[in-house]
Amino acid sequence: MKIARYSYQGAIAFGIVDDDDELVVLRSDPMFAGFDTTGDRVALADVKLLAPVIPRSKIVAVVSSGAEPSFVLRPNTAVVGPGDSILLPAASERVEVEGQLAIVIGKIAKNVPAADALSRVFGYTVATVVTAADLASATRAGAFDTFLPLGPVIETEFDEAATALRGLINDEEFQAVSLGDDDRTTEDTVAALVAFASSVFTLLPGDVILAGRLDTPADVVDGDTVTLSIAGIGTLVNPVVRPA
Amino acid sequence: MKIARYSYQGAIAFGIVDDDDELVVLRSDPMFAGFDTTGDRVALADVKLLAPVIPRSKIVAVVSSGAEPSFVLRPNTAVVGPGDSILLPAASERVEVEGQLAIVIGKIAKNVPAADALSRVFGYTVATVVTAADLASATRAGAFDTFLPLGPVIETEFDEAATALRGLINDEEFQAVSLGDDDRTTEDTVAALVAFASSVFTLLPGDVILAGRLDTPADVVDGDTVTLSIAGIGTLVNPVVRPA
Repeated sequence: MKIARYSYQGAIAFGIVDDDDELVVLRSDPMFAGFDTTGDRVALADVKLLAPVIPRSKIVAVVSSGAEPSFVLRPNTAVVGPGDSILLPAASERVEVEGQLAIVIGKIAKNVPAADALSRVFGYTVATVVTAADLASATRAGAFDTFLPLGPVIETEFDEAATALRGLINDEEFQAVSLGDDDRTTEDTVAALVAFASSVFTLLPGDVILAGRLDTPADVVDGDTVTLSIAGIGTLVNPVVRPA
Repeated sequence: MKIARYSYQGAIAFGIVDDDDELVVLRSDPMFAGFDTTGDRVALADVKLLAPVIPRSKIVAVVSSGAEPSFVLRPNTAVVGPGDSILLPAASERVEVEGQLAIVIGKIAKNVPAADALSRVFGYTVATVVTAADLASATRAGAFDTFLPLGPVIETEFDEAATALRGLINDEEFQAVSLGDDDRTTEDTVAALVAFASSVFTLLPGDVILAGRLDTPADVVDGDTVTLSIAGIGTLVNPVVRPA
């Protein structure tokens, strides 16, 4: 099931994307209030899609993997949605992007073993992870406003066969990877990450875990368009702008 | 003016601490709703004080100072209040504490010059900054649940003469410093930090900036009690517990 957060006629709402490119309107945020519908439907073409989640507590960005992954936290003020501009900050001369799988937590989790970890996941979305590559601090490099486009929707089911990730800058492919590999499925990677994060802090509904660097970033400049897609989830498109 | 957040008869509320050790009850969180009072008063002795703010976006922890301070982000799940236990995590053998001034942002701030920065500050509170000193990652070292006691109140006025910070472990003093020095007043330090942080990201009401390491930490063990006070603000007391 694909969940969208969107604005329509001046209000922000949540909906389920059905097969007809329509949204089945939900009464409230399904992460907290379940899947009660209002009975209304709106055409996807008539709404502006927003970032499908605005974390209220944590965005965990894995910067190197392993049994005890190294991570930094990103601020929720970095999150933007589909179509929103990635703004190049004055403090950086070299900004790079990389697509990553974003895990959206749905239930409180503290010291959860990997075998139980997937029960705490609400769903998955696409993250365009933006980094000021010339800044020494990994926290500061990823903390700028607009540096974390998320979307277009949250897919609540996980399809191991549909985790191919593809990234384009303008029309040129810079990233084409499968998130799983021969050693470990994507699902096992997700479970291990959620378990590890929950050993450090309490994960809350709406927390996001970025599933780790794939070491396939590409530089972007003013005027570029970044297109990131994960086969089972959707496609996220964001222009790159250097503010005047 | 000193603002407390507290629980009383099962509800969480905000109040102004008056000279008689009573709280003048506020209708809502003054950071967002102003200082309308309900007309009620409750005795400070009858309430449980809580962390005076739970950040919804960012806790900025300065780890080294200078023109471009180095910082990490701490999660809001680390925040606890007066009297709450600091829980020693299984992942660390050496946990240290240090008192710091916590700056509470009250108004949205983006690219604010230092001369305007103090207008965005709601007030100041005491932070007991807890760190797992044996972990390599500065983010992970400060991210554990209960690693950021805040309180006891937010002082909305800044008294340069009353910024002496004193820390005790049990009855032993480990920290006694003035936050300002001959080169720079505390107020100038605060303004510079808020201006710098606002150059990286948009600061939102409720964001907290920890005003930087003083390099006077002390180790704590199970059974210790940490007492941190800043003269013009108040005293924050937290026991240290290793969970069974």
